[in-house]
Amino acid sequence: MMTEEFTRLQDRKGRASLKWQRYEQQDVIPMWVADMDLPAPQAVREALGKAVELGALGYGEVPPRLVDAFLNWCQQQYGWQPMPEELVWLPGVVPGFNLAVEALTKADDQILVQTPVYPPIRVLGKLRQRAQQDLPLKPPSEGESQWSLQVEQLAAALEDKTSALVLCNPQNPTGRCYSPEELKELARLAAAKKLLVISDEIWADLLLKPEARHLPYPAVSNEAAQHSITLMAPSKTFNVAGLSCAVAIIPNPELREPFRKAMRGLMPDMNYMGILAAEAAWTKGAAWLQDLKQHLNNNLDLLEAWLQNPDHPRRQLIGYCRPEATFVAWLDVSRLELENPWQAFLDAGVALSPGEAFGDDHYLRLNFGCPAAQLEAALERMHQVIG
Amino acid sequence: MMTEEFTRLQDRKGRASLKWQRYEQQDVIPMWVADMDLPAPQAVREALGKAVELGALGYGEVPPRLVDAFLNWCQQQYGWQPMPEELVWLPGVVPGFNLAVEALTKADDQILVQTPVYPPIRVLGKLRQRAQQDLPLKPPSEGESQWSLQVEQLAAALEDKTSALVLCNPQNPTGRCYSPEELKELARLAAAKKLLVISDEIWADLLLKPEARHLPYPAVSNEAAQHSITLMAPSKTFNVAGLSCAVAIIPNPELREPFRKAMRGLMPDMNYMGILAAEAAWTKGAAWLQDLKQHLNNNLDLLEAWLQNPDHPRRQLIGYCRPEATFVAWLDVSRLELENPWQAFLDAGVALSPGEAFGDDHYLRLNFGCPAAQLEAALERMHQVIG
Repeated sequence: MMTEEFTRLQDRKGRASLKWQRYEQQDVIPMWVADMDLPAPQAVREALGKAVELGALGYGEVPPRLVDAFLNWCQQQYGWQPMPEELVWLPGVVPGFNLAVEALTKADDQILVQTPVYPPIRVLGKLRQRAQQDLPLKPPSEGESQWSLQVEQLAAALEDKTSALVLCNPQNPTGRCYSPEELKELARLAAAKKLLVISDEIWADLLLKPEARHLPYPAVSNEAAQHSITLMAPSKTFNVAGLSCAVAIIPNPELREPFRKAMRGLMPDMNYMGILAAEAAWTKGAAWLQDLKQHLNNNLDLLEAWLQNPDHPRRQLIGYCRPEATFVAWLDVSRLELENPWQAFLDAGVALSPGEAFGDDHYLRLNFGCPAAQLEAALERMHQVIG
Repeated sequence: MMTEEFTRLQDRKGRASLKWQRYEQQDVIPMWVADMDLPAPQAVREALGKAVELGALGYGEVPPRLVDAFLNWCQQQYGWQPMPEELVWLPGVVPGFNLAVEALTKADDQILVQTPVYPPIRVLGKLRQRAQQDLPLKPPSEGESQWSLQVEQLAAALEDKTSALVLCNPQNPTGRCYSPEELKELARLAAAKKLLVISDEIWADLLLKPEARHLPYPAVSNEAAQHSITLMAPSKTFNVAGLSCAVAIIPNPELREPFRKAMRGLMPDMNYMGILAAEAAWTKGAAWLQDLKQHLNNNLDLLEAWLQNPDHPRRQLIGYCRPEATFVAWLDVSRLELENPWQAFLDAGVALSPGEAFGDDHYLRLNFGCPAAQLEAALERMHQVIG
């Protein structure tokens, strides 16, 4: 079953959308920032619609029902549950990892990051005034199908002042989901070296292979749970990134209490609409999510058929491996030998995310979370650039 | 004209409302936290309803239309306009004054605060690890009708390390609106002593006297504009406190740039629903606001008639002066000689805000932003305690 709503083109011009507003005056198809041009599940819209209709939109507070909804979602999706007291609600994953560095590392500590990575992680050390070491993930080479975590490389890079490691899993922009083996190895290293692991798992629900299941970092081992802070949200899964709802899982009270303390005064109250959306999504969104994954797989098939079309050999110069998760494709366009690939595609009417922001200017990121017709239209325009 | 919607009782139980959730299992009328049991304006609900219906709830971004809407609102309501480049959008007034202290004062500086005051201001120094001096506002004495600002007292309290003064105007909980003379005197002191003024003006639109007009602190003088950060929001005015939209006005770039820098990474993206609500409210909410003020004045009349009812002389032991602004009444209940007044009223089924949290345990704060029937029901229960 595929919901008809995934085929309907959204016109988000003039609607205060970050993704659409940037190019509002131009004939540009926005395939950049990571939200979807698809409607949130009907259950979410109903919950929000009801609140809007009643009309008192004052202070929200996370109800016990939302805690239960999240715990049940974790059980259902990941076969794992945190304890209720381990949860810290907050208005976004980005403030979450910034606060974690602020509260749980010292001024002269160093943090480790692997690139390419989500730009707010890439600038984390700079913003929080911590030394940061960027290590490259290993791209898939001949015979491999995926990027790899490179735990030995991490181990070799550790310095005395290294106190934290920022993980992004599933990984944005490469779409990699780390294997239990990789994560166990990482957790052993972190335990041995007393590293804090900050795990951004905002993409956890969007594993695209039907049989795949996300392994939350705190579920890797008891030690992993004790040395980590894990960030999750309904934002990507249900296309509610504008509603500011996220949750940190911090099993160790010696990390949780300073984190909570650092939040006080700085974090806004939990957004009322975010609370309602998250509850509805986690309670009633599972079937919709199945449909969404099917839709995203179909879009990936479409993208791959386009890339591999034998009538257009130049497209095969684009380096690509099928993402295991997310709704973004990470495209190595360096062999196209365009002077400024990002600008070239923009000039042809397609806005992509420049790889430079993620730490690798050989690449562009394409967001395929949209109706197939929108993806097709974007690819047609990209064809004008590539051939 | 009085909108019929202000008479309809809201049942917010089971709806993730901070105000209603606390006492959900009890027969308690919540008259505490400062949001209203009244629906937001229809124009706001329509804008939100439309977005929910379209359904893509991804990242928002403040559109130029919202900037214009705010500037026009300032002109219309205060006869004053900031420059567009002076605005910094943020998810709440509380994160705003916390960031201001963090970014614009030094670790060994002292901040001055006047009490009683909104609890997040009262704990500001503690949260941000700054020394804080609390000075009492002067209560109305015989022949005076209002609390007063006491600029000489502030001047006398200044120490070398005093670098910032936190203003709350209109004042929560006393309902005082400072006069242009008081504010000018304050601005002269701040300029002479090179103090930063952080002005929380979240209540600016809710001046209850028909002829009254709010004077924003940066409109007091050029010097005032240059040494201040002013925080405003549609939250209280339009009952959208749950939607996380606020704006700082920082005319001086030497204050604005460090403030902006401190925000990066820590503040969540602007909430999509907050953006849409603010734009609709400031564009189309003026007539509704007139009706709301009439309604709030009627509720105040009702409260005063109840307090002054000659058949119940014990009620006259309650110290009260009519607030010039806000929808909260600050009641001195000390002469009732109840052991724990807050608990006594709660036991009778009315939740008020304890004065202690504001810095004066002689008082309770009563929120009268509700249908008249709700206020009457609460007063009837309070009668059981007082007589």
